[in-house]
Amino acid sequence: MSKEQKVTPWEVEGKIDYNRLIKEFGTSALASDTVKKIEKLAGDSHIFLRRGFVFSHRDMDLVLKDYEAGKGFFLYTGRGPSGAMHIGHLAPLLFTKWLQEKFNVNLYIEITDDEKFLQKPQLDYEQIQKQADADILDIAALGFDPDRTFIFKDTEYIKQMYPHAIKIGKKVTFSTVQAVFGFNNQTNIGLMFYPTLQIVPTFFEKKRCLIPAAIDQDNYWRIQRDVAESLGYYKVAAIHNKFLPPLTGMEGKMSASKSETAIYLSDDEKTVRQKVMKYAFSGGQATIEEHRKLGGNPDVDVAYQWLSILFEEDEKKLKTIHDDYKSGKLLTGELKQLLVDKINAFLREHKNKMENAKPLLEKYMYTGKLAKEMWNK
Amino acid sequence: MSKEQKVTPWEVEGKIDYNRLIKEFGTSALASDTVKKIEKLAGDSHIFLRRGFVFSHRDMDLVLKDYEAGKGFFLYTGRGPSGAMHIGHLAPLLFTKWLQEKFNVNLYIEITDDEKFLQKPQLDYEQIQKQADADILDIAALGFDPDRTFIFKDTEYIKQMYPHAIKIGKKVTFSTVQAVFGFNNQTNIGLMFYPTLQIVPTFFEKKRCLIPAAIDQDNYWRIQRDVAESLGYYKVAAIHNKFLPPLTGMEGKMSASKSETAIYLSDDEKTVRQKVMKYAFSGGQATIEEHRKLGGNPDVDVAYQWLSILFEEDEKKLKTIHDDYKSGKLLTGELKQLLVDKINAFLREHKNKMENAKPLLEKYMYTGKLAKEMWNK
Repeated sequence: MSKEQKVTPWEVEGKIDYNRLIKEFGTSALASDTVKKIEKLAGDSHIFLRRGFVFSHRDMDLVLKDYEAGKGFFLYTGRGPSGAMHIGHLAPLLFTKWLQEKFNVNLYIEITDDEKFLQKPQLDYEQIQKQADADILDIAALGFDPDRTFIFKDTEYIKQMYPHAIKIGKKVTFSTVQAVFGFNNQTNIGLMFYPTLQIVPTFFEKKRCLIPAAIDQDNYWRIQRDVAESLGYYKVAAIHNKFLPPLTGMEGKMSASKSETAIYLSDDEKTVRQKVMKYAFSGGQATIEEHRKLGGNPDVDVAYQWLSILFEEDEKKLKTIHDDYKSGKLLTGELKQLLVDKINAFLREHKNKMENAKPLLEKYMYTGKLAKEMWNK
Repeated sequence: MSKEQKVTPWEVEGKIDYNRLIKEFGTSALASDTVKKIEKLAGDSHIFLRRGFVFSHRDMDLVLKDYEAGKGFFLYTGRGPSGAMHIGHLAPLLFTKWLQEKFNVNLYIEITDDEKFLQKPQLDYEQIQKQADADILDIAALGFDPDRTFIFKDTEYIKQMYPHAIKIGKKVTFSTVQAVFGFNNQTNIGLMFYPTLQIVPTFFEKKRCLIPAAIDQDNYWRIQRDVAESLGYYKVAAIHNKFLPPLTGMEGKMSASKSETAIYLSDDEKTVRQKVMKYAFSGGQATIEEHRKLGGNPDVDVAYQWLSILFEEDEKKLKTIHDDYKSGKLLTGELKQLLVDKINAFLREHKNKMENAKPLLEKYMYTGKLAKEMWNK
């Protein structure tokens, strides 16, 4: 039975109706001519654009206009370090990496150690710090430009952020955060102030800021767009991705606390195989005979969906998989094996990249061109 | 007509019933044997102790016990830079200075630039910063020990404070700050988080912290005492002074926004004379003849009260003034002139001390022994 749809920065439940989210959040559907313009200016295409995984935006047209006019823009995204990173966490970061590479712009990555500490009753400060350091290495492995990327923890960069934060905070009442985030009388006053700190990086440059992130973060950008101009900054732009469906089915999002729903970046090859084979929700039939006869349903099959969203870039190959699965020629076990191989190849490469990224951490956080500029502010 | 008594960190109204405050805030009256013990350990007496201007406390006995046992303690007080400093603002600072001198302990002085920015709709960030710098010089003029005193602005020292602040914030709900400070749905989320930052300095050392401050600040310490031990620190101790009555009468406290109620540290001699002569509420009679016959009432006479609280340290001289005024021998104009002379002498000296303090600012804020230790944290 489907749960009621619920999407906040801290909870995603139910079968997600993305068109309804666009309406409820007041964002715009990503039109095909906007996609074409991104691809034209980028001189390349991205799997998320082609497959509709990036589906909604705010002011993306203005960002492209500014870019064409030579005004430029900058990128901002983030990560809340509350538990081991899984493949779903990587999606917006992978798209961000592509945008930085194609548009050659500055990128700010906020590690919201304060948010996660304040939000998770069971986690103490030291656990969060440890997770933050681990996450930073996973992020650095994606290969951002070390002189154009600044990765920072809120608790470490707070001195430069706090004056902005209180200017934002002065303009936002309890009523507003109550309405936007569902805060109530029992919400702690640290979490209540936190939204200011997620908004601050949108003021890091006097250019338009583009945020690639999952749509559950949009609540923050609504507040930003209410206060930005009165503080002398641009309203933030955003480009939203959907949630990578949990292994266990098309509802909600992967949860770091339910290990069967997700593939962690640290999972070994055997674990990946076991999880996909055991938990990946299948659109296939109950028996081989029936499957051969009736075929599978790729629309609800998580293995197919993951290939479509992340792992099978080749349009022709994907179409063959789709058609073969639908006709019954490709069995569930075979489809899952395709995914297992792709994931394991991806994770092997990720582990290598992590090793290579270690010497670059210093640059991203302190000594790269952009990082140094930010610390001198 | 007397207004209803109202005492919060941001509002003091009506005739203050200090015994009622002790009951309402749950503090303890400062007993004469505690006063005697302070005087014995200090090897000296202070006018505020002798005249009952310091009247209430929390755990002062435990502070003295710790001191006697060689565990020591530390002092913490502060200043909100929202407008020109007047003589009423100096009272807790003067007592703090005496305590530091007599007990030879570390002192932390928090300049709450964030609080005042968040609380005052009409003041912008730059105005607050300018006021903060002016206030720091006024405070430095009191002559604190430059190697045992750390004066810091919240926005400047936030990096060291923020990790503590979120640990406190995680334990305090909106319900609590609503009940304690009267916050409501329209309160901004900056001000809502601010109490954590006023509590943080009580954790600067793993010793008992003693706060000399006006009793309107006690709300913060109630919250501190609720959370301190669970975070591994002592419950804070406090010693409370009354409010120096406004020139205009015995109700409420001096207001920086009503210039006739206060003597500013920057007032010149002529202004002081004019304000006292024109506005100081008099306990005298309407005519000289009646005054000679019926005498004045020192209990409601602000000039007498100021002499008693701050300016006439000599017990015998004060008694003579009291008796002569009550008998009608001393006229209102003569009494006011005594006060004018005392205030002007005090302000002349203060101005000299400000000049001498200028080269010490660096030490209080950055390079003195304690300041350096705090920046290296």
